[in-house]
Amino acid sequence: MSQIAKTPAPPYYAVIFTSIRTEGDQGYGQMAEQMAALASQQPGFLGVESAREGDGAGITVSYWESLDAIKSWREHSVHQIAQEKGREIWYGSYTTRICKVEREYSF
Amino acid sequence: MSQIAKTPAPPYYAVIFTSIRTEGDQGYGQMAEQMAALASQQPGFLGVESAREGDGAGITVSYWESLDAIKSWREHSVHQIAQEKGREIWYGSYTTRICKVEREYSF
Repeated sequence: MSQIAKTPAPPYYAVIFTSIRTEGDQGYGQMAEQMAALASQQPGFLGVESAREGDGAGITVSYWESLDAIKSWREHSVHQIAQEKGREIWYGSYTTRICKVEREYSF
Repeated sequence: MSQIAKTPAPPYYAVIFTSIRTEGDQGYGQMAEQMAALASQQPGFLGVESAREGDGAGITVSYWESLDAIKSWREHSVHQIAQEKGREIWYGSYTTRICKVEREYSF
């Protein structure tokens, strides 16, 4: 992440994806870039922020116009394959939280 | 962050704090530890997750039982001092988003 996402005035939606990576890259870096690029082309995509510590714990937050936009992205065929490989190879554990953003303020 | 926060069944609330750090520590590390410890003692606190990249971009998500719990923590006198120093010294920019967590699933 190099920048804070420029999101519109609330309400909109956020997907908080917190994960613990397994060791080694095993194609993860390439997949992560591809998924970020593909997500940004989906209808209703508003932005994404991501940070990962050296110990493998990371947080990615993507922002969306609606719950329908989130559902469509979750069910996207290419994203589905990445999700499967995520459970098989890349992630030791993860939690996904679907949220409605009610207020936002910046400095 | 070493672990994913163990939160209860939704609904509950999340504060997504995305920030870009200024250069150098300048007391930031100590303050961050103190604030994490103090936050965890507040009524309605459910958990916290945090990750920062080497380039200074970071995401901290704290989880709370209610909007009132979030408001009380934001207005806590010691936290207020940290927020002021954050704007003066530690952060180049940040965005805070207050969210209602509607769904959660884990692997």
